[in-house]
Amino acid sequence: MGSQTGRIFRVTTFGESHGGAVGAIVEGCPAGLQLNLAEIQKDLNRRRPGQSSISTQRKEPDQLKILSGLFEGKTLGSPLCLLVENKDADPSAYAPFKEIYRPSHADFTTEAKFGLRNWQGGGRASARETVGRVAAGAIAKQVLHHVAGIEILAWVDRVGEIQAHVDSQNLKAEDTEANPVRCPDSKAAAQMEALIKSVRSEGDSIGGILRCVARNVPAGLGDPVFDKLEADLAKAMLSLPAAKGFESGLGYDSVGMRGSEHNDAFRMDGDTVVTQTNHSGGIQGGISNGMPIEFSVVFKPTATIFKAQDSVTNEGEEVLLKARGRHDPCVLPRAVPIVEAAAALVLCDHLLRQRAAQL
Amino acid sequence: MGSQTGRIFRVTTFGESHGGAVGAIVEGCPAGLQLNLAEIQKDLNRRRPGQSSISTQRKEPDQLKILSGLFEGKTLGSPLCLLVENKDADPSAYAPFKEIYRPSHADFTTEAKFGLRNWQGGGRASARETVGRVAAGAIAKQVLHHVAGIEILAWVDRVGEIQAHVDSQNLKAEDTEANPVRCPDSKAAAQMEALIKSVRSEGDSIGGILRCVARNVPAGLGDPVFDKLEADLAKAMLSLPAAKGFESGLGYDSVGMRGSEHNDAFRMDGDTVVTQTNHSGGIQGGISNGMPIEFSVVFKPTATIFKAQDSVTNEGEEVLLKARGRHDPCVLPRAVPIVEAAAALVLCDHLLRQRAAQL
Amino acid sequence: MGSQTGRIFRVTTFGESHGGAVGAIVEGCPAGLQLNLAEIQKDLNRRRPGQSSISTQRKEPDQLKILSGLFEGKTLGSPLCLLVENKDADPSAYAPFKEIYRPSHADFTTEAKFGLRNWQGGGRASARETVGRVAAGAIAKQVLHHVAGIEILAWVDRVGEIQAHVDSQNLKAEDTEANPVRCPDSKAAAQMEALIKSVRSEGDSIGGILRCVARNVPAGLGDPVFDKLEADLAKAMLSLPAAKGFESGLGYDSVGMRGSEHNDAFRMDGDTVVTQTNHSGGIQGGISNGMPIEFSVVFKPTATIFKAQDSVTNEGEEVLLKARGRHDPCVLPRAVPIVEAAAALVLCDHLLRQRAAQL
Amino acid sequence: MGSQTGRIFRVTTFGESHGGAVGAIVEGCPAGLQLNLAEIQKDLNRRRPGQSSISTQRKEPDQLKILSGLFEGKTLGSPLCLLVENKDADPSAYAPFKEIYRPSHADFTTEAKFGLRNWQGGGRASARETVGRVAAGAIAKQVLHHVAGIEILAWVDRVGEIQAHVDSQNLKAEDTEANPVRCPDSKAAAQMEALIKSVRSEGDSIGGILRCVARNVPAGLGDPVFDKLEADLAKAMLSLPAAKGFESGLGYDSVGMRGSEHNDAFRMDGDTVVTQTNHSGGIQGGISNGMPIEFSVVFKPTATIFKAQDSVTNEGEEVLLKARGRHDPCVLPRAVPIVEAAAALVLCDHLLRQRAAQL
Repeated sequence: MGSQTGRIFRVTTFGESHGGAVGAIVEGCPAGLQLNLAEIQKDLNRRRPGQSSISTQRKEPDQLKILSGLFEGKTLGSPLCLLVENKDADPSAYAPFKEIYRPSHADFTTEAKFGLRNWQGGGRASARETVGRVAAGAIAKQVLHHVAGIEILAWVDRVGEIQAHVDSQNLKAEDTEANPVRCPDSKAAAQMEALIKSVRSEGDSIGGILRCVARNVPAGLGDPVFDKLEADLAKAMLSLPAAKGFESGLGYDSVGMRGSEHNDAFRMDGDTVVTQTNHSGGIQGGISNGMPIEFSVVFKPTATIFKAQDSVTNEGEEVLLKARGRHDPCVLPRAVPIVEAAAALVLCDHLLRQRAAQL
Repeated sequence: MGSQTGRIFRVTTFGESHGGAVGAIVEGCPAGLQLNLAEIQKDLNRRRPGQSSISTQRKEPDQLKILSGLFEGKTLGSPLCLLVENKDADPSAYAPFKEIYRPSHADFTTEAKFGLRNWQGGGRASARETVGRVAAGAIAKQVLHHVAGIEILAWVDRVGEIQAHVDSQNLKAEDTEANPVRCPDSKAAAQMEALIKSVRSEGDSIGGILRCVARNVPAGLGDPVFDKLEADLAKAMLSLPAAKGFESGLGYDSVGMRGSEHNDAFRMDGDTVVTQTNHSGGIQGGISNGMPIEFSVVFKPTATIFKAQDSVTNEGEEVLLKARGRHDPCVLPRAVPIVEAAAALVLCDHLLRQRAAQL
Repeated sequence: MGSQTGRIFRVTTFGESHGGAVGAIVEGCPAGLQLNLAEIQKDLNRRRPGQSSISTQRKEPDQLKILSGLFEGKTLGSPLCLLVENKDADPSAYAPFKEIYRPSHADFTTEAKFGLRNWQGGGRASARETVGRVAAGAIAKQVLHHVAGIEILAWVDRVGEIQAHVDSQNLKAEDTEANPVRCPDSKAAAQMEALIKSVRSEGDSIGGILRCVARNVPAGLGDPVFDKLEADLAKAMLSLPAAKGFESGLGYDSVGMRGSEHNDAFRMDGDTVVTQTNHSGGIQGGISNGMPIEFSVVFKPTATIFKAQDSVTNEGEEVLLKARGRHDPCVLPRAVPIVEAAAALVLCDHLLRQRAAQL
Repeated sequence: MGSQTGRIFRVTTFGESHGGAVGAIVEGCPAGLQLNLAEIQKDLNRRRPGQSSISTQRKEPDQLKILSGLFEGKTLGSPLCLLVENKDADPSAYAPFKEIYRPSHADFTTEAKFGLRNWQGGGRASARETVGRVAAGAIAKQVLHHVAGIEILAWVDRVGEIQAHVDSQNLKAEDTEANPVRCPDSKAAAQMEALIKSVRSEGDSIGGILRCVARNVPAGLGDPVFDKLEADLAKAMLSLPAAKGFESGLGYDSVGMRGSEHNDAFRMDGDTVVTQTNHSGGIQGGISNGMPIEFSVVFKPTATIFKAQDSVTNEGEEVLLKARGRHDPCVLPRAVPIVEAAAALVLCDHLLRQRAAQL
């Protein structure tokens, strides 16, 4: 039941990692938008496996087809069906896991829930599902940009213990894309790359933190109580494979502060109300205040590793599992376009919701 | 539009901090449940202002009325209307804020969104809104306990720099309730209480971290992709006033680990599949695995402080604001029943959703 | 689970006929609307029992309280809690039905669904539930009128075999309110009133047809496919107690026509596209075309009668049931404000949805 | 926004009549169902254009592909992507309608709503959209049959003034399929066929009434208030192209009856509560009572005719329109599998909702 997100800009994704196709249906995209297909494909390419030496070597062209909702290049207001075929699925690699549950994967829990699973891959829990989100999110980005000039940029802020230092105000997309790690701090990026390669050579994996900024977000987005902007962003981020934490604004760093240090005092910037600091990350009471929205997402180390692990079979037998195959030793670099897309879906939905807030 | 949560166990809250009443409508509560009203009132009392020397001195009896959905003590399957009247609202205390936006409150953003606000308090952004959630959550707790023996316990794990040490497996509710801070580590609790009092005496405020465990959760709850259990928990937690972060399982601590350290290896416990560690916090691929669910919520320092702050008026004039009034210098102790309730709402909805997962 | 309607203007009703209160929560009402409370109360009074010689003699003042969402007379954009207390519930009248299922009432089906029921009245199936809809609908009417000048008028078009003749284009509300039957054709109204009194004197009941027109509806409301305007209107009408049919435009009368007779040819009226006829009832492809929206609702004879009927007990014993009590021998007159309210809820939701349809 | 239906068994359709493909996403189908693909294709074939001498001659193989949600023939519990490619779209036939609005089609209203439309066909308003519903409905039928033995049968009950006489209790699917009109009363069927051919030869069209029965529906399906079973059925039916009316049970025929005639008295059939008559059509208070569910759907004459009609252009010029092309002179025969599918979607959703109704 959980394959859908959004109230007005409503996205449903479909597809297993080893089925015929993956994709998404986008409902509620306003009519009349001239879609830039190259931009959508570009985001899919940023998410694509096999794009660099530090990502999985599965080869997927991930060529997008749009089967409905578009006419002479413009959105019709009807559902957009976004489709990407699976080309390089390799079920044989998964044969050993037909009966054995891989630790910290969704194999066991999927069977507990549904009574069966497609063992030829990670099914819906695979990061391959995010193809649909990235394509849908790329459309949301175009709505956001067209309607309000909003731009969303994510980057790898930390891998293991290596912390980058990034000026989110002046960050440019090309700085992030300048290296395979997608960390705009080139010095940290080099260290991260070395660390990821070293971890991979040990058949192991490593986690890290992504940070994301949304600039030019008008004040007023987000709904009080359950659908606070932070709440919807948190949900969107924790719905990503391997995500285990979310923080808005300063997040954890606010714990050591007093209210008098943390509060964002107001001042006028011409006719505009602005805050002197942005500790809240652009959101107060769950509603955007016009300052840049900033948040972080924590990713655990990838569950796929090539070291021996204790496991059990679906018959309840204890076994030692040693995997082989293709994997990402660190999900962070490929997660950058995914986090941007997930944030775009949330913001686009709230941008459209806002139109009904006042008489 | 954001006053509702849940797909099957669906809760809508209503009420401003300074209106006639606050409360909730609970739809989708299974019929035939013998409601324990005293237990609901008990949770409301735990949330109530004025309950201890370290909470706000607003006096609200918070006596619950159930106006529908109940017959001879049992739920009818129809909506339960849960109502609590506002008794001690003090609009005069808010008169200064009619034109001045309080920093890091929702005053400015609410006006940006809706064009007006009830300035006689925090409106929907006030923690008073959580009365409805706590009452609804107390009902969800009873469903969870009746159907599956699930119990949910939250506690204050950190205030400022003071970190408690708590054994979540063996924690008892009475240990948490043993002191006004609601920290079951009595030594840390004493330090936290002293810190909160000291901060209050300075007219300042402080944040911290709550941790929560749900025990006896069966494997299989949570939906793949957007409605992962962690995603819904994250949303529920970030929808609480002053919450700025969420972590599932080890959360941030997983960043420094390798996959080989972090993965939760399986073993058999009789006929049951269990994990040797619980770094994932009882959730894999967004679905519960039968181990205890554990997560943390970060709360920033309360925005209400009694020190002078720069602000602006709704006419765009820069002013110096110095507040007086009643407030909580630290929201954590009263947030304990709120976090439990919010978690109960998520789990109860997924418990009922799970009934439709298989043929 | 079914107590809610609307996607943006979202209404949840609550309350049993013999519980503490009935009412509704209205979410998504745009902020800034100066509510005319007298108009809301007026619609509640039109729905009220005991208002005339041909309606049930239950005495309910049905005085509305608004407990939230309103400040200085204006909507805040937060949920409006609309509450009406039950004053004249008479459970003793229902004692005989504690074990016996009343034919064509919801007694048996409610127990089949929920395993129990509040036997002290019709519970959620009672027309008393419509108090919440009428109050919420009266607010929707004000939004519709304020934003687009839309007005909605229903009337009794038929009782038994007596058919009224009404010019829907020029109909005025006061014509409908001029007699207790609420039929603007005064001659037919007199016959209907006589028929209803005669039926009542026999302890029997009778059905009929309501017709409704919505004028000044702009073109463009309604969504293709599942949420066509007619589909949502049909659902709203069939959700009313005793409703058994819906027709849009000519409805059943279109069956005998050829396409060449039925099609509504276009012409220009100044700069506006209009149709020469309005057989479609103002809706084409599920979307309003700017002409008046017209539809009918069929109501069966009231199930409550005072003649002996075969029935069974909840123990499976066959019995002869002979009821006594208060009832409406014909639901049509009191259904007029209910149908208007139900239509207003649908139109208001679509009016707000329309704001997100284009860039 | 309106391309979705169902709360638990949730279906989203996509595709324009002249785009790349049409289809549906089915979410919430219980896992573990062995899908009979031939049965699904069979329903698509019953809906297919060009199947008989009295339907449109557009040639579409309508071969179904299932791209996700299925593994080794069984449903996985994840979304099923159902896809049918458009093969015989003929945009050139629609070139005259690029600027001219066809009377009683959705051309004008679609542009009023979205600001543009795909003029190469009926877009989302085309009956081609129902491909997705029929495929999804065919899956719902299998769930209904597997879980509860429910079967749904629709038939053409009336064309123009020709009324069939059908015994819904003993009706067999093959009787309906025995002639191209899909009317199980063979004598009436022959007259209907002659009438349809005669109307077609005049370049005109004709409407009629479909009737549908669902047998073996257990008592307890449907939700009080807004989601009454009749309300959801009415919505589903009025969402079908050309549908203009719905009646449940006796519907309009109940208007002339007294309550004492219309009420369905109870009796025992062994241990089962049954009704002596079934005037209510198996539903009381919006909840199924275990008797066969019966309802009718009124379809207006097809809007596509080949006679001259007054119309206007999108520039506001009055013109005379004379169409040519392929069309169904009467939509009823092909609507039979569509109505069955639409009913199956409603019943399947309520069957699954019912699982959460009691503790």
